[in-house]
Amino acid sequence: MPTFEELLRTLRTWGQWGPDDERGALNYVTPDVRRRAAACVRQGKTFSLAIPIRHGSGPQAGGARINPLHLMTATGCDQSARVDLGMGAGYVDDVLVMMVQGGTQWDALCHVYYDGHLWNGYPATTVDARGAARGGIDKVHGDFVSRGVLLDVARAQGVECLGPGYAITTADLEATEARQGVQVGDGDIVMVRTGQMATIGDFADWSRFRGKEAGLHWETAAWLHERRVAAVAADNSMVEATAQIPGVWVPFHMLALCNLGLHLGEFWYLEALARDCAADGVWECLLAAQALPIAGGSGSPVNPIAMK
Amino acid sequence: MPTFEELLRTLRTWGQWGPDDERGALNYVTPDVRRRAAACVRQGKTFSLAIPIRHGSGPQAGGARINPLHLMTATGCDQSARVDLGMGAGYVDDVLVMMVQGGTQWDALCHVYYDGHLWNGYPATTVDARGAARGGIDKVHGDFVSRGVLLDVARAQGVECLGPGYAITTADLEATEARQGVQVGDGDIVMVRTGQMATIGDFADWSRFRGKEAGLHWETAAWLHERRVAAVAADNSMVEATAQIPGVWVPFHMLALCNLGLHLGEFWYLEALARDCAADGVWECLLAAQALPIAGGSGSPVNPIAMK
Amino acid sequence: MPTFEELLRTLRTWGQWGPDDERGALNYVTPDVRRRAAACVRQGKTFSLAIPIRHGSGPQAGGARINPLHLMTATGCDQSARVDLGMGAGYVDDVLVMMVQGGTQWDALCHVYYDGHLWNGYPATTVDARGAARGGIDKVHGDFVSRGVLLDVARAQGVECLGPGYAITTADLEATEARQGVQVGDGDIVMVRTGQMATIGDFADWSRFRGKEAGLHWETAAWLHERRVAAVAADNSMVEATAQIPGVWVPFHMLALCNLGLHLGEFWYLEALARDCAADGVWECLLAAQALPIAGGSGSPVNPIAMK
Amino acid sequence: MPTFEELLRTLRTWGQWGPDDERGALNYVTPDVRRRAAACVRQGKTFSLAIPIRHGSGPQAGGARINPLHLMTATGCDQSARVDLGMGAGYVDDVLVMMVQGGTQWDALCHVYYDGHLWNGYPATTVDARGAARGGIDKVHGDFVSRGVLLDVARAQGVECLGPGYAITTADLEATEARQGVQVGDGDIVMVRTGQMATIGDFADWSRFRGKEAGLHWETAAWLHERRVAAVAADNSMVEATAQIPGVWVPFHMLALCNLGLHLGEFWYLEALARDCAADGVWECLLAAQALPIAGGSGSPVNPIAMK
Repeated sequence: MPTFEELLRTLRTWGQWGPDDERGALNYVTPDVRRRAAACVRQGKTFSLAIPIRHGSGPQAGGARINPLHLMTATGCDQSARVDLGMGAGYVDDVLVMMVQGGTQWDALCHVYYDGHLWNGYPATTVDARGAARGGIDKVHGDFVSRGVLLDVARAQGVECLGPGYAITTADLEATEARQGVQVGDGDIVMVRTGQMATIGDFADWSRFRGKEAGLHWETAAWLHERRVAAVAADNSMVEATAQIPGVWVPFHMLALCNLGLHLGEFWYLEALARDCAADGVWECLLAAQALPIAGGSGSPVNPIAMK
Repeated sequence: MPTFEELLRTLRTWGQWGPDDERGALNYVTPDVRRRAAACVRQGKTFSLAIPIRHGSGPQAGGARINPLHLMTATGCDQSARVDLGMGAGYVDDVLVMMVQGGTQWDALCHVYYDGHLWNGYPATTVDARGAARGGIDKVHGDFVSRGVLLDVARAQGVECLGPGYAITTADLEATEARQGVQVGDGDIVMVRTGQMATIGDFADWSRFRGKEAGLHWETAAWLHERRVAAVAADNSMVEATAQIPGVWVPFHMLALCNLGLHLGEFWYLEALARDCAADGVWECLLAAQALPIAGGSGSPVNPIAMK
Repeated sequence: MPTFEELLRTLRTWGQWGPDDERGALNYVTPDVRRRAAACVRQGKTFSLAIPIRHGSGPQAGGARINPLHLMTATGCDQSARVDLGMGAGYVDDVLVMMVQGGTQWDALCHVYYDGHLWNGYPATTVDARGAARGGIDKVHGDFVSRGVLLDVARAQGVECLGPGYAITTADLEATEARQGVQVGDGDIVMVRTGQMATIGDFADWSRFRGKEAGLHWETAAWLHERRVAAVAADNSMVEATAQIPGVWVPFHMLALCNLGLHLGEFWYLEALARDCAADGVWECLLAAQALPIAGGSGSPVNPIAMK
Repeated sequence: MPTFEELLRTLRTWGQWGPDDERGALNYVTPDVRRRAAACVRQGKTFSLAIPIRHGSGPQAGGARINPLHLMTATGCDQSARVDLGMGAGYVDDVLVMMVQGGTQWDALCHVYYDGHLWNGYPATTVDARGAARGGIDKVHGDFVSRGVLLDVARAQGVECLGPGYAITTADLEATEARQGVQVGDGDIVMVRTGQMATIGDFADWSRFRGKEAGLHWETAAWLHERRVAAVAADNSMVEATAQIPGVWVPFHMLALCNLGLHLGEFWYLEALARDCAADGVWECLLAAQALPIAGGSGSPVNPIAMK
């Protein structure tokens, strides 16, 4: 097995889709892939894979990343409306202040860099206070629609939730595939379930997300590349396991996001979908997980919808 | 034809889905409707129907509603990261401050009220500074997935853009159906094109949205009800035409939103989809227009995806 | 000594300055008081009594109240300015998102209410989503200029910091006066030092502010009234001691703010001023603690300046 | 008279207070200056020189700079409080979202740069997404307390308001001094009145601030330097006149702020103070115009208080 440094040097898709490409692995999602994805809708069921956006609440523990603020500028209690609508009518309006990356979201390709470069070799300095000129979420906001495949690693291992810091290997992923009878392939958006969201109650107890978290081992980047996966999401805060390599905070991010152009989905809520898939044995869906078109955004909040 | 006051008194679905319902006309979207909607995906094409979210830019003209602020808290230019990731790595992060209703969006059922009541008879005072206890967008955030039908009224009338203040009648809608060879029905999300978005250039010139706008006549609420439409969206700022009835600011909102529980989609960008539909003569699609799960929100930004 | 309930019923200045007054005890600050206050400036020294406003940092522990966000919209690193100033010039701009009450601040008279009324009997419902029509900080934003008197209770008791939950009594205040050789009187702004700010290091360790805090006993409201104090501030989060009366969260707020119209200053940084006063034995100053003119605000951030 | 380019090369205080200084001309404010300033308080009168901070209202015309948002998170109308205070008590809380430079404010020394440098030669790149490491407002937030001298140029010229684009010269300033019988000197904060604020009604009509504005001619930077002025403020949006030199947007900013380290105060409301000074013939005051301690801020909102 190659070392992390070897993979970092060799596992790379820069230039694969031309020097100006900003879609990365989303290029694997062809019309043909989407047509087949739509055929996954057999019962007309839908599942929302997002955690709520609640004022002053959520997985962020304080510090530089806040939980959302949801602020009403007009309510049904105001003595007289700001604007006269006639007929004793009134309206309700609100403002949202949120980290682009605070809850259920996509990381854009510009979200992480090393040695001064984003994916495809764009200089990190192309991201300044005006946002990302390269690799922003606005370059792919409508592209996250494909076949979704859920790999329920926790269930495959017979546990409610993988242990703190558990690093899911390629062997684990393939064992899950085998157990579920599903095969990840071209243009799929892979969703990995660690079971962490089973511990949060009414989206209120985020303690499990604040220490060591279970998630992908950095080596799985090679497997995701080989399978030509379009994007990967998980029910934890960083897709990858925490503290895999001393001194390297997010090795999987480096390989997947910076080297391979794989968008990462974080804080996805997979509980209801997983129960349904376990019940009917069908682990694929049409996944509509489009981002908001935030110009130069390093990511986007998203409400992914799985249709079966 | 009944008067507005008569319709206001008689055209009403309060209680139709029980005293505690908060989904309104979205109840028309059954699994069966969704299964048929998915069958609309024949070519694997997708269209994003959202305008960009750009810092300090957009359709809002100032005053109490602002255009979005997109604010970077970490960039590729910072001399040293806020957090040490090791390996010379860095990250990019950002904050979004936006009106829930500032760009491409859904109005929740709590967005407008009259005589002290929201749709289904909930008291307007259930919406306070903590958000909407009733009729918030969080009650339906995953439900906006159905067959989408585009009614290109502008194209049907042979104009680039309907005139300022033009009020689209039921007859106009039916003439458009006939011309397009499509029939609006049970659980559809109807998208009405006035052509206003053809005038904005690179999403920069919003002057057409600041005077009198073309949009639906209030009387069309009856037709949408009769056809059991699930929701209705348009490429203008309020779905309805401006200044239809002296002293009543938004008569269609009263009928559609407060009386019928019809969610309204505003500032939808229909240009590319309309060109495609005109080219192939197919005016239906699978529409995934899920909202963000904003707890108690009066609406939500949305990036609707039409799949054909 | 009267009980809390007795004081709540009897200690009240509603109507004292007329039915429309919104200044409360600040009425005690007359031109004459201010002229004498200015005479306290003998050496030309100034002390800032505010804690820093730092991005993502401060005394708030999460939940519905956030620490400030300081967000740059233009920096010296952007590759090209948003606006061309000519001459290779550039500019720097920023946005502040903050709780009005998150750091060093004034509570406005509208900040707390009970039995449906604000100070002077204004209905609590005069404060709606549009802000406070009555008792907002904008009604007094320029009025917080008077003689300041520091009562260093911690130093008077020979401790670095009063113990958790210690409730400062009238006897404590008078003992401090006696020890310092100063007399609180007409129109003074009283600053009470518990010593809690001595524990925060570089404004980074706020643990002392998150459990039980030392502060004023509710009974001191009577003494402050008797002395005709204009406003009172302290180096803790609520001026008063925490958990004085079971089931009544903020009894001093009820008496001082709602009943007496006394503005309260919280999170004041008194360390440097206290050292100087201890050194020269002069415990009075000219205090300029004007608020920002936030229309309808429930308070305001403030940078109080003490001049000696 | 030297040309602008000559002044730009020669009129410079970099290094005058050492290579690490971040106070600039505020160094002229000595204890002695402050003691004399306090002696200006003769009647105990105060004047607030700030415009209101109102939700969705103010001098900003849209685009990247917004007017303030004032957003209530708890009001007197909420059906039940977010937090139970006991006793039927409730509280009111609010959030402020504002440009640091949107209303009455100070420009910090880091606010403008040219040729890659801030005042005192600090690299412009010391200002990044984390704020200004050099020249931020937090380095001087308590220093803006000194003698204030109002130069009412409009009144001296016998007009309500100087004409659009009128550039006030050194001769104009000296003529105003002579007419008023006042002499600007060491450590003074000079306030220049153009009369523009006489045109805004109830802080609602800002049209006069959106075209060409009256303000200081760039040449006055030399005079302010010679007089050892500590800072300068005006009742317009940029202190200086608009469009003085083709292709150079803000020549006075370059000289005063970047070259001389002179902090600039903008959008100051001088109307009431000016009327009082005209009435009693006394044009000096004790000015307390402290900034908020915004770490790394490019400026700060301020409520300047003039005491006479």
